[in-house]
Amino acid sequence: MSNWIDNIVWDEDGLLPVIVQDSISKRVVMFAWMNRISLEQSLAHKKAVYWSRSRNKLWVKGEESGNYQLIEDIHLDCDYDVLLLTIRQEGGISCHTGREGCFFNRINMHTNEIEINDKVIRDPNDMYEKKNDK
Amino acid sequence: MSNWIDNIVWDEDGLLPVIVQDSISKRVVMFAWMNRISLEQSLAHKKAVYWSRSRNKLWVKGEESGNYQLIEDIHLDCDYDVLLLTIRQEGGISCHTGREGCFFNRINMHTNEIEINDKVIRDPNDMYEKKNDK
Repeated sequence: MSNWIDNIVWDEDGLLPVIVQDSISKRVVMFAWMNRISLEQSLAHKKAVYWSRSRNKLWVKGEESGNYQLIEDIHLDCDYDVLLLTIRQEGGISCHTGREGCFFNRINMHTNEIEINDKVIRDPNDMYEKKNDK
Repeated sequence: MSNWIDNIVWDEDGLLPVIVQDSISKRVVMFAWMNRISLEQSLAHKKAVYWSRSRNKLWVKGEESGNYQLIEDIHLDCDYDVLLLTIRQEGGISCHTGREGCFFNRINMHTNEIEINDKVIRDPNDMYEKKNDK
């Protein structure tokens, strides 16, 4: 593996923040974390693999829902401590709520209220039961 | 201040990751952190104010370079623990290296080498000396 990975500045937990942008809509659809193993697996398969901090384990994005993220481009920031993934989103759904992306809570800066304009494309119950049906 | 801020899930250091996207180019230009005070100041002035973890103090983006970030839109993610700012970038430069954004290190997935295609728009030495000249 090349030395750009060796030069990454991991945080104190050995993790790297990852911003995920859809290559077609250009929307920022997700934010997640990677450790070195998940980054190497992501590169090997050209599919996003994250480190789940809540479950404390590798998380192949899409392994339950089928909504894999195919990696088209990778950029590292000026400080070598944040990654930007440009992806093609299978199923068109990045968020576990069944929406295109996770940033659907828009702050109305006049009223200070949250507005949700993004539609639920697929019922999450349906999305995550799929695997068990097989 | 409305209760959406009260519902934010801050990390153990009282911080929130913030993704910054340019409203015109749609590029992700920066990644930074906010604490509650910096968020409230950002909302009050509609200009991005971050928490600098390296300097351990409030950081009015642009206070030295003049490259303020005018906030056009704010989105909170599904878990209420990540913010997406859509901004208009004064001076067209978000990165301290003098480039449009910080994610200029493109990984060539064939060669595993880093390629830098983003031009330096303005010499950082010139950019940060400006204030002292006044």
